[in-house]
Parts: sequence; C-alpha cells; structure tokens
Amino acid sequence: MSSTYGENLKLSIFGQSHGPAIGMTLDGIPAGFRVETEKLQTFLNRRAPGHNDWSTPRKEADTPEFLGGIVDGFTCGAPIAAIIRNNNTRSGDYKNLKDCPRPGHADYTAQVKYGGFQDSAGGGHFSGRLTAPLCIAGGLCKQWLEEMGIQIAAHILAIGECGDNYFDPMDPEVESVPVDFPVLNPEAGAAMKELIAQARAAGDSVGGIIECAITGIPAGIGEPMFGGVESKIAQIVYGIPAVKGIEFGIGFDCACVPGSASNDAFTVLGGKIVTESNNCGGILGGITNGMPVIFRCAIKPTPSIAKIQKTVDILQEGNADLQIKGRHDPAIVHRARIVIDAVTAIAVYDMLAGRFGTDYFAKES
Amino acid sequence: MSSTYGENLKLSIFGQSHGPAIGMTLDGIPAGFRVETEKLQTFLNRRAPGHNDWSTPRKEADTPEFLGGIVDGFTCGAPIAAIIRNNNTRSGDYKNLKDCPRPGHADYTAQVKYGGFQDSAGGGHFSGRLTAPLCIAGGLCKQWLEEMGIQIAAHILAIGECGDNYFDPMDPEVESVPVDFPVLNPEAGAAMKELIAQARAAGDSVGGIIECAITGIPAGIGEPMFGGVESKIAQIVYGIPAVKGIEFGIGFDCACVPGSASNDAFTVLGGKIVTESNNCGGILGGITNGMPVIFRCAIKPTPSIAKIQKTVDILQEGNADLQIKGRHDPAIVHRARIVIDAVTAIAVYDMLAGRFGTDYFAKES
Amino acid sequence: MSSTYGENLKLSIFGQSHGPAIGMTLDGIPAGFRVETEKLQTFLNRRAPGHNDWSTPRKEADTPEFLGGIVDGFTCGAPIAAIIRNNNTRSGDYKNLKDCPRPGHADYTAQVKYGGFQDSAGGGHFSGRLTAPLCIAGGLCKQWLEEMGIQIAAHILAIGECGDNYFDPMDPEVESVPVDFPVLNPEAGAAMKELIAQARAAGDSVGGIIECAITGIPAGIGEPMFGGVESKIAQIVYGIPAVKGIEFGIGFDCACVPGSASNDAFTVLGGKIVTESNNCGGILGGITNGMPVIFRCAIKPTPSIAKIQKTVDILQEGNADLQIKGRHDPAIVHRARIVIDAVTAIAVYDMLAGRFGTDYFAKES
Amino acid sequence: MSSTYGENLKLSIFGQSHGPAIGMTLDGIPAGFRVETEKLQTFLNRRAPGHNDWSTPRKEADTPEFLGGIVDGFTCGAPIAAIIRNNNTRSGDYKNLKDCPRPGHADYTAQVKYGGFQDSAGGGHFSGRLTAPLCIAGGLCKQWLEEMGIQIAAHILAIGECGDNYFDPMDPEVESVPVDFPVLNPEAGAAMKELIAQARAAGDSVGGIIECAITGIPAGIGEPMFGGVESKIAQIVYGIPAVKGIEFGIGFDCACVPGSASNDAFTVLGGKIVTESNNCGGILGGITNGMPVIFRCAIKPTPSIAKIQKTVDILQEGNADLQIKGRHDPAIVHRARIVIDAVTAIAVYDMLAGRFGTDYFAKES
Repeated sequence: MSSTYGENLKLSIFGQSHGPAIGMTLDGIPAGFRVETEKLQTFLNRRAPGHNDWSTPRKEADTPEFLGGIVDGFTCGAPIAAIIRNNNTRSGDYKNLKDCPRPGHADYTAQVKYGGFQDSAGGGHFSGRLTAPLCIAGGLCKQWLEEMGIQIAAHILAIGECGDNYFDPMDPEVESVPVDFPVLNPEAGAAMKELIAQARAAGDSVGGIIECAITGIPAGIGEPMFGGVESKIAQIVYGIPAVKGIEFGIGFDCACVPGSASNDAFTVLGGKIVTESNNCGGILGGITNGMPVIFRCAIKPTPSIAKIQKTVDILQEGNADLQIKGRHDPAIVHRARIVIDAVTAIAVYDMLAGRFGTDYFAKES
Repeated sequence: MSSTYGENLKLSIFGQSHGPAIGMTLDGIPAGFRVETEKLQTFLNRRAPGHNDWSTPRKEADTPEFLGGIVDGFTCGAPIAAIIRNNNTRSGDYKNLKDCPRPGHADYTAQVKYGGFQDSAGGGHFSGRLTAPLCIAGGLCKQWLEEMGIQIAAHILAIGECGDNYFDPMDPEVESVPVDFPVLNPEAGAAMKELIAQARAAGDSVGGIIECAITGIPAGIGEPMFGGVESKIAQIVYGIPAVKGIEFGIGFDCACVPGSASNDAFTVLGGKIVTESNNCGGILGGITNGMPVIFRCAIKPTPSIAKIQKTVDILQEGNADLQIKGRHDPAIVHRARIVIDAVTAIAVYDMLAGRFGTDYFAKES
Repeated sequence: MSSTYGENLKLSIFGQSHGPAIGMTLDGIPAGFRVETEKLQTFLNRRAPGHNDWSTPRKEADTPEFLGGIVDGFTCGAPIAAIIRNNNTRSGDYKNLKDCPRPGHADYTAQVKYGGFQDSAGGGHFSGRLTAPLCIAGGLCKQWLEEMGIQIAAHILAIGECGDNYFDPMDPEVESVPVDFPVLNPEAGAAMKELIAQARAAGDSVGGIIECAITGIPAGIGEPMFGGVESKIAQIVYGIPAVKGIEFGIGFDCACVPGSASNDAFTVLGGKIVTESNNCGGILGGITNGMPVIFRCAIKPTPSIAKIQKTVDILQEGNADLQIKGRHDPAIVHRARIVIDAVTAIAVYDMLAGRFGTDYFAKES
Repeated sequence: MSSTYGENLKLSIFGQSHGPAIGMTLDGIPAGFRVETEKLQTFLNRRAPGHNDWSTPRKEADTPEFLGGIVDGFTCGAPIAAIIRNNNTRSGDYKNLKDCPRPGHADYTAQVKYGGFQDSAGGGHFSGRLTAPLCIAGGLCKQWLEEMGIQIAAHILAIGECGDNYFDPMDPEVESVPVDFPVLNPEAGAAMKELIAQARAAGDSVGGIIECAITGIPAGIGEPMFGGVESKIAQIVYGIPAVKGIEFGIGFDCACVPGSASNDAFTVLGGKIVTESNNCGGILGGITNGMPVIFRCAIKPTPSIAKIQKTVDILQEGNADLQIKGRHDPAIVHRARIVIDAVTAIAVYDMLAGRFGTDYFAKES
C-alpha cells in the first residue's frame, strides 16, 4: 500500500472496514490553526450514509477521536492524529468474498497482490469507509483554506442521463450548492433521486459525474512539471475508489474546439488581469491564473449490487454465481462529492503550504 | 518548479526552450540494462516536428548526448544523464511575450509566479520542447518494459469531429498502430490530416484525444490509496503541457451505465482468471487485474496560432492585440501521443520497480 | 514537524507525552509477515522505565493496541497502525515549563517555532515517551529481519568514565548482550550502576555511549550518494532526542591512523571474500561489504535534573531559577539502547525493502 | 543509486569520474536569486587539487557550464543545471580495479551491487570527483544564505595527532578561517603540512577532523522528529565519501559530563534569550536555538596509497597484491572541508526554504 500523500503536509490513512478503527495522521501543519470540531462533524455527516431512499440504511457514527496535534482547540505543531472506531460491522455478510471476488471491486486484485493475506472483510483497506479519515483531513484543510478566502464546493452534474446545470465557469455558485442533495437545479435533483430509487428497486446501481469548483485561489499556485495543479488534484482524486475520469476546464471537449475559441483571452477588469472565458479551468501550464479552478470527475456505479453476478471461485478454479448480501448504496455519487471536496482541499492546502512555507498561516492566526 | 518525478526511479527534467540545452537525469535504475540508442533515436524522431502539412517546418535534431550512467551500452547503476543542445533557437520571435502573455500559454502564470525573472523565450521551461527529455527517459523505460513483455502504444482517437476506431479493450492492437500518423482507421487519418491542413490555412489550430493501451502488464501492480495505477499515470500525464482530461476504461461513460453493465464479470479462460469485458480499463482498486490497461486523454488545441488574439499589456496595464510570429504547429496531437507513450512507460516502470525491487531486472539481464 | 520517515516503508509517529495517546503508522509492508506480539511486548518492556535504582519509578504500561494492518497474526498489506494510551500523566508537574524553559530540553526552541501553541506538558511531541511508538515499528522490523538472519544488538559502551568492552568488530557478540543491563563486561556494568546511583543521589544525571552491531546483513545494501547506510542510519538515529554524535567503524579515530592501517585488506576465507579487519564498520562507499556493521552513538545526560538550574522567564523577560519537580531518570542510556536498536531495524528494513522489492518477503513467508 | 537529496529543493548529482561529464540539477529554487559566478568559481577552486606538497598534481579545471535555470545572472525558477566536462582522464591507471578491488574504496561493494556493470574507471560515480557538482549546488546555496546573514565556515581541527584550536562555540571565528590552508592556529597548520608531506614520502596517507560552524541562523529551524537539524546535516554529510563520524556540540564528550554541566543555562542578554554555554551545538530537540551551530566530522585517510596492499583477485578467486598507480592525494581533509561547507549550505537552505516557503527569498531580492 501507499496510503501516504503530500509534499508539504504528510497525510497517512490507515485502518480496514471491519478492523478495530480507521484513522489518519496529518503531519506538517503549523501550530496555531483553529480547529472547529462541530463544523468538522457537520462536514463528516454529509459523507456518512443517511436514512432515505437514496442511501444505505447502515448507520455510521463517524465521530473522530483526536489523539494528538490539537491542544485547547488549536493545532500545536505536532502531527494531528484522529481515529474513528468501527462498531457497526457485520463480517458474516462478506465471508465468501475472498474466494468469489465481487466484480468491479478490488477483491481479486487484492488477492493477487496480497496472496490471501489481505483483509477481505468489507473490502478491508479498499472499502469506501476509508474515505471517512480522508474527510477528517480534508475537512480540516477546508477550514484553514476558508480563513484565507478559498472556497471549495462540488455538486452532482449528472446521474445516468439526468444532468444538472453546469457551474458558471467565470463565477461558480459555490455558496449556493445545497447541503442535502447537492444539485444546482432542484428539478434535476428530483429526477436523479427517482433514478436512484429505480436502481434500488431493480437491485442495481447508478454512477454519475461530479463537478467541483475552487474560488478565491490566488494566481501562481502549482509547481510544474509534475507538481502542477492538475497533477496534484488528479493524483489524490484517483485515490478515491470509484473515480474513473477527471477533466479540467472544458476537458475532453477541447478536442472539438479550434485554438482560437479554446484560448481564453486576457483582459483588464477593474485594474486586475482576468480572462474573458475560462476554458482552461483556471490553470495554465499547471499554475493557477487567478480564475476559478473547475474540474469534473466520473464516479462509477456502486459495484455492490443485489443482482446475481458472474464471477469465479478461486479455490475451485471454476466459474460461480455471486449474490452479494448486506445493505448497499444504489448510488454513492452524492456521498462521493464530499470526498471530492475533501481531497481537493488537501491538495490545495499542500500546494499553498509549499509556496508560503510552514510559518505562513501561523503568523496570520 | 517541481520537475522531479518518481518513487523508485527519480526523474529530473531541466532546461529551457531557448537555453543552452535541455536534458534529464534518471536515478534508481539498476545496472545491467541494455540501452539501444538507435531504437531510442527512432522513438525520439517521432516526437520531433517533421516536414509535412500537419507539422511545423522547424527542424529539431533531438539527438541526446549521454553524460553518465551508461557504459559500453549497458546501464552501470549510476544516474543516467542526457542532454540535447538547443541550436535552432530564434529568440526574436518571442521578444514581447513577457509583456503581452499569449492566451492559452503559461506566459502570464509564469509572470505571476516568477515575478518577471522567468525565462520567457520560447516558453522557457514550459515549452513543449521540454517533452524531448521526457521522451529520452520514457524511451529507455519502454525498452526495458518490452524486455519483460510489456507493450505500450497510443493512437489518435479524435481530432476535432474526426474519430478513429477505438482500441479493442479486450485485445488492443498495440502492434498495428502506424508509426507515421498513428490511427487505426486510415480513412479517419486522412480526414484528420485534412482538418489539420484547414486549421493551418485558417491560422488556427485543432486539439484531439489520444487513446493509450498497455498490454502484458501483470496483475497486482499499483499501490493504493495514493499510488494506484490511475493516480500514478494521471500525475505524470498532467505534467505534459496541453493535457486537460484523462479517463480510464469507459471513463466518463460510466455515469450512464448501471452497475450490472459496468461491472466486468470474472471468468476462467484457459486456466486463467480474466474478465469478460474491460470497462474498468484493467484496473480495480488502483491495482492492475491482468487485463490491458486502457486510458484516453484530451489534448487542447495548440495555443500558438497565427490569428490576432486579445491579450493584455502588463507594463501598460491595458488591453492589447497579439500576433504571434514564428512557426507553430496547427496540431500537436500526433506528436503528443509519443509523449503520452513515454510518460506512461516512466510511470509503469516506476510502479514495477517498487514491486520487484531494484535488483529485479539486473538479475534477469 | 516532520515525523515521517522512509523511502520504501513510510513510518509516521504521532502523539504527545500527556495527550490521549501516542502511536505510529507503518505503511508499505508486504502482506504475509508473521507478527509475534508477545515477542514485541518483551522488546517494548526493555524500553519502559523499571523499578530499580537506575530508573525512574514511573510505571508505563506500554502495551500497543493494533488498529489496522494485521489480521490473524499476519500483516495484511494495509498500513499497520498502533496506539498506546497515555494514562499515567501528571500535568501539574510541568505547568511552568512554557514560561521557564528547561535547559537542555526543547521547551525554548518549541516556544520559538510554535509560538506558544506547542503542547508543553511533559515535553509534548518532543518527549522521550515518543520513542515507544518508534520501538513498536522497530520491534516489528526486527522480527522480520531476524527471519532473514539479520541480528541487531546494542550495548552500553560507556557511562561517564566507566567503559565496557568493545564489540569484536569482526564478530560482535550480538547474542550475548544481557537483556537487563546491557554490558559485555559485568564489572563495568556494576560500576556504571554505581555511577547512576551517585548521580541520582546528587540530583544530577549522566550520559554515555551506545555501541550497536548488525550481523548477517548481506553485501550490497545501501544507495549512495544520499541513501548510503551511514546516511540512512544517522538520519533516524538523530531523530532520537539526546543523541549528539554517531560514528561508524573506527569513526573519529580514523584521524590518527595512516591509510595503510585504516584500509581493511580483502582476503578469501572459506571461498568467500571478507576483510581482515573491520575499521570501516562494514560499509564502503555507503554500501555494506558483508562484514558486521558497527556504529556508536553519544547519548547526552538526561537534561531533567533535580538540581536548581538557571533559566529565563519568557513572560517576565528576565532570568529565573528553575527546580524541575516530578520523577526523572538519572540516566537514559540503558533505555536508549533499545531505541537505537529499534531505529536501526527500521532503517535496515527500509534499505532492504528497496533492494528486494515489496514482493520479496511475502513470497518467502 | 540514490543521488537525489532534499525536501524543498531537489538536488540530483550525476556523472562518473571518467565519463563525459559530471553535473547537478537543483530544482525548487525560487526565481530572482542573484548568481555570482566568479564568487562561485573561487569557491570551487578551493576544492580542486592544487600545486603544492599536500595535494595531487592533477589539474582539474572545474568550471561549470550552466545549461538551465539562470537568465541574465538571476535564477528564473526553472531547475538549475550545470555540468563540468571531464577532460583530464587517464583510464589506463585504473584498469585492473574491477578485478582487484582497492581496500578502503567502493570497488568491491560496487561489484557486488552492480554485478560487474559498474563504471570502475576512476571510481565511477563513487569518485571524490563527484563532490565538484555538490560544491556547485552548495556554493549557490551559500551565496543565498549569506544574503540572509547566515555564514558557514569549516576548518581543519586535526590531522593525525596535530590539533588546531577549537572554534569558540559561543562566537566561532567564521570570518577568520584562512582560505588557503584552513586552520585557526598557523603553527598547527605548519605541523599538519609536515605530516602530509611525510605521508606522501612514505607512500601513505592521513585522515583528520573538520569542524564546521553556522552563524546567523535564526532560532526555530529544523523539523523533528526525522527532519531535525542533526538528521538533515548528518544525512548529507555522510553522502561525502570518506566521512566516518559526525558529532554536534560537545558530541561524544557528553558521555563524561553530568547533566548539570552539559545543560546550557538560558539567560537574557541585551534583551535577547541566549544560552551561557553552547554544549548542545545550537540545537535543542532538533531545532536551532539561535546560537551558532557547531559540528565536527571525521575524514578517513585517503584509501588510495602508493604502498602495496593485500586484496583479492575476483576472477581468480584468490588473494593478490595491489599497487595503485596514478597520482593520489596523501590527504583530502583540506579539500573535504569545502565539501563539508557546501553540503551544510545545501541542508540549511533546504530547511529554511521549508519554513519560509518557496516565495520567501524571491520577495526579498
């Protein structure tokens, strides 16, 4: 495994779905940052499964216990460490996954890589549950970025054929993304929920596209060639299980537009240099240009479905049918957007910290 | 800048477009690897601009001079270092770019980040010319991977509205990609060339999509959470100027397919476990599953176009018109595919080296 | 802080002396390693303070709770995570350390660096207590190295003027180092204990020198220039508070010996190439030569002493007298040798893992 | 090999003693730093062998050619790259070193590690010649540190039994270290030169101890646990071939001093908090305390001596006598002190850059 991320901060994620606990350590954060635990809990709650038609009925109490790095509500300079105990585990549901790998999951690749020693219960370290500690780290980074005037928000752009409005790339509505079911157009949201309910009824699942915007990020952030903004964000976003694509600005559409139309003209507005369009998604040569950063990522349908699927029996070396028991989400797109939000905050904080140094924020606090 | 890449190998890229030389160092390569310089030169020539309607008339003699790391045709364990002298530079063409940044280029963001000290001649370290040392490193890694039975090939999937055939995701035709203009369907290729010629005539440019396949890669490669195959490839691919999107397997289409259709069923074929489809692009949970790895990336239109464009005059703090002189490519997609090929080889080699250790290949040679 | 170490493994240490818990994560370990928890506990107990004349009367129950990475007694490939709860804390003893920094401690430098936000209770993250999670990581690495025939042992070479025998550099007696008070010559041990008891009686403390040997390490380990064996071991050894010097082989004595005497002649012995002496401490050019690796490090006297000391009052901006209350060790050399042992194992494992790859050990198990 | 160093800057060293060139890349340096090439050349000349009794008669013209990163005398933000051509090579002198490894050199360990593929001519990448690019990087860092008021200087503390005066640890005389033969006491210098001349006459060599001081370094630098000042400096100093020991402050002497004497009392002097002594060498808990940083390192005698030595013939698998031809230094201590100076500057710059961020210096320039 390589569950460690970052140049200036060092994030380490640990734990397995059905182990004693999951958690994270976050090293390299200056002393003197305020930590608002209630705000963090509110953020974490949005990732946790809920009690409605479009989520799993499992109840997860994702309340982090901080073991280090915070004293009297402020960071103290030591690594921040937090854990979440696993207490609602049902290992019986997953018993045969080691021998009969679930299509679309990491069961088979883990078996090859770890030779049968992997923790297969609930997907082990590959479980979506491991996004909870990612959200602790990201929720903290988000708080510190907000104090600098940097906002990050994501919405569901599409689930199946149902599409939400795009963010205005010149001025994305980051403040007005609803907390509950994050779409800009409520009608699109209703249609998406209906699609999810249909998938549940059919014992199936749906995927989608999440669009994310970063506003208030200053020009000059990013360290090309290999530490550019796209590289940094793409690396961590692909750390989220289920992401299969990421594009910045107009992304794949740039294949169909001539240079004269895709280039964003510069202009002076209110004494400030801006671009007249934002096809590049706020990034030129891997460095922010002061415009909003915009990207989209593709989330595959939840691979755990109720329908019977074809797989193999590794022990018998033959084909087998698989019926996955337990409770599963017919869609994870709405939960994933919090994780996208979180990992983006981690990547942005890491890039800012490199530019301004470990002393920067502490001086401001 | 952060022009250093890799966990097990350490690649460092240096030089500016109009400086004395460009080059690379590649550390962490075991001793005893054969280096075929002619084969490498053939590979590098495909990236270099040619003498036809769809390329710039500049002639670049990209012949690397090796300064270290190779003795009598074999790696010796010391860092490999190679440079390419810059001898066809025309700085006059770029004189005013510092004050009047080119839309779609890094001129403006470099100005913000480096405060006027950046080397703006020819784009400096941001120039596409810096992909030449990337191709030296990648061409070497490609040779070593081929000795292990791992093939990498890319083709142009689309330029504008002209689309090539997709690779067969179960068995991509990596051997049959033409060297010259890399399309699977010659008719599509002819139409693309016509589009490029039209763009040139119009003083404009076109972008496109490149599809890349890796065959022969064993199952079990990749180090999630943050060192998974998608993370590693995406990080380095986004290091190439002009890439604006990357997707694996069915990528963004996964939003429109139910889980029951996007999951790849496992089956036993000839005593081996394979999948019946390859929607996941050969990667589950960030780890290869033994099927071909397939990804696509979006290449934006060459930002340097002959048409007059709107920009700003940084000194005058006002708007300005910009006419870019010099010779520029109306499309770089066909050249970029060699770079995609190269950086993919670097990322794959880096991941393999971690799994098998620095002693592995040397023992085999 | 930068409490993360390693190239191939990634170790992260967290927690503060009087916080809720201390702990570690250890990422990059292959699946399939056996973990013997009783053996680990025995190792940890040697670091913990005891009940005799030469240690502090504090009782620390350093029993790690594993939160991840281990299933049924074997590593599962996921990061290993373990914590130790802090339950014998007496914050009152340390109340005034923030304002009146203890000479020889990090109180003052932490105040400068963290601006008053540092956790000063018990030394916070700088406390010697943080060596306990280091010993969890090191104790595990030690077990795995032993399965490969690599032994690590350290003894007290000197406390004050009392000197133990040196290891035989050609064949150090790693098996015969006593567990309890680790000296090769019992008479020297008795004299050292007497010195420690005198220091305790005087309200003072003593330092010493630890000598460490690694046997069974194969030739060819180490990655110069900057990842050579000396660099790797020195970096982590200096991570232990109180270490002020480290030397390999004859170390500083090499200044007084001509090249003809310090060079170790090669010879063939039993069909194997060995050296006739071991002045280089088993390392040439940063790479092991197959002989035992020998090094020594200097441990400063425990800075917390009962005697009244001169310091400053930061708030009053004036001089002050300081009497440190609480229970403190008059010597930590005998405890530190376990930590030296542990960090050496971490460094050696990290170097071996790079050479043989992440798959190596798993295949052997 | 792992010839890459640094967290905030990324230094890469390449080349072999008798290859086409040696060189370095230095990435992560902000734009806008002035580069004084004449001053750099003066610094490099001190490392190069001279024309006197205590050096080798080889003449090395170590004039770096800069290939990137510098425009009009200022850093431009791109990686700095420089090479030195090798033009005074005499490969014939070293022909049989591959089969008959020189005692005290890396010939044998390189043979084991690189299996006969290593570049054995002149020691290849292990040659002391590779310290020249280290000095390019270090000489540049030194210039930038001096602009911040940070001075680094080293002197020869001992050669054989001849000892120089120690630096005053409270106020080391960094300005008054002579350029030519760096000792504080000229009489000691004369005796040392005599010792070197005797060693040359005897076909032998001598080692020594170098003492280095850093003044003007602010309090608060260093990132424990593993990025503390001692760890960072020790890691890079051990990257220099021939270093066998390093100690900070009173170093190994701390074993013989009680805590009450080794602790440095704090006091207020001129409104500033200082220590009354400097036994800790300016470092507490891995962090600078504002006092001068003082360390010493042991340099082993040059292993290449004229005397006949015992070695093995690897091909014949038997013992052999070795007479090393060519011209060699009877001592390298006086040249090594420039390299110590250089690598210390690299380590200190790396630590400062992390604290103040990549934007810091650029803003000041």
